[in-house]
Amino acid sequence: MTENRSIVSSSHDTSGRQVRLARLSAMGDPVTDELLRLRMSIDNMDAALVHLLAERFKVTQQVGELKAAHGMPPADPVREAEQIARLRALAEDARLDPEFAEKFLNFVVAEVVRHHQAALNRRDSDM
Amino acid sequence: MTENRSIVSSSHDTSGRQVRLARLSAMGDPVTDELLRLRMSIDNMDAALVHLLAERFKVTQQVGELKAAHGMPPADPVREAEQIARLRALAEDARLDPEFAEKFLNFVVAEVVRHHQAALNRRDSDM
Repeated sequence: MTENRSIVSSSHDTSGRQVRLARLSAMGDPVTDELLRLRMSIDNMDAALVHLLAERFKVTQQVGELKAAHGMPPADPVREAEQIARLRALAEDARLDPEFAEKFLNFVVAEVVRHHQAALNRRDSDM
Repeated sequence: MTENRSIVSSSHDTSGRQVRLARLSAMGDPVTDELLRLRMSIDNMDAALVHLLAERFKVTQQVGELKAAHGMPPADPVREAEQIARLRALAEDARLDPEFAEKFLNFVVAEVVRHHQAALNRRDSDM
């Protein structure tokens, strides 16, 4: 069984791999079953994360357009401080490392800034 | 109205700021209303993202324990390639930049590796 698992791990045939994992699972290997089950949960959550992030960027785009249309500054340090404090508290409740929650927000905000900058560049090139 | 908005933006009193925004909103400023509405959606999505990430790390911790208990290698390049390809495709469907989706997965996986390393260090110090 260990040999089968090492074949699974060393395979570079992406499409055939799930087939082999499924075959091992059909053979009733409980460890492979458990690994497949856990990975399906990870994949479900990753799909949810990607769709949530897509929606979040739609909303931050609307915020950027609203601010630009009304001459409001794009950055808002007070709002960002509030968001960080809130996310850290939520992370603690959910037993997620608050440092990671803060890094995550910074990672997403950096992408928002990149979007806003790209939008400004497009506007400049239209003029 | 522009003056009120600049007071809101330059305030460093985090706790009083939502109160002032809410007061502007009560005065019927439609731009402030819209900004508050959009920010509430961002905050709701951020709470969902943090809770999903907390759940995801619980599952990757189980994967790490399962692999360690059965002598399976912690890293799995084939699985990671599959995850990247799948997330990029999901991102395209959701109109999210596939590059960002890949960067996001790498960001999360780096944290998973950090958790696994921390778990190994704890185990070593127990010996």
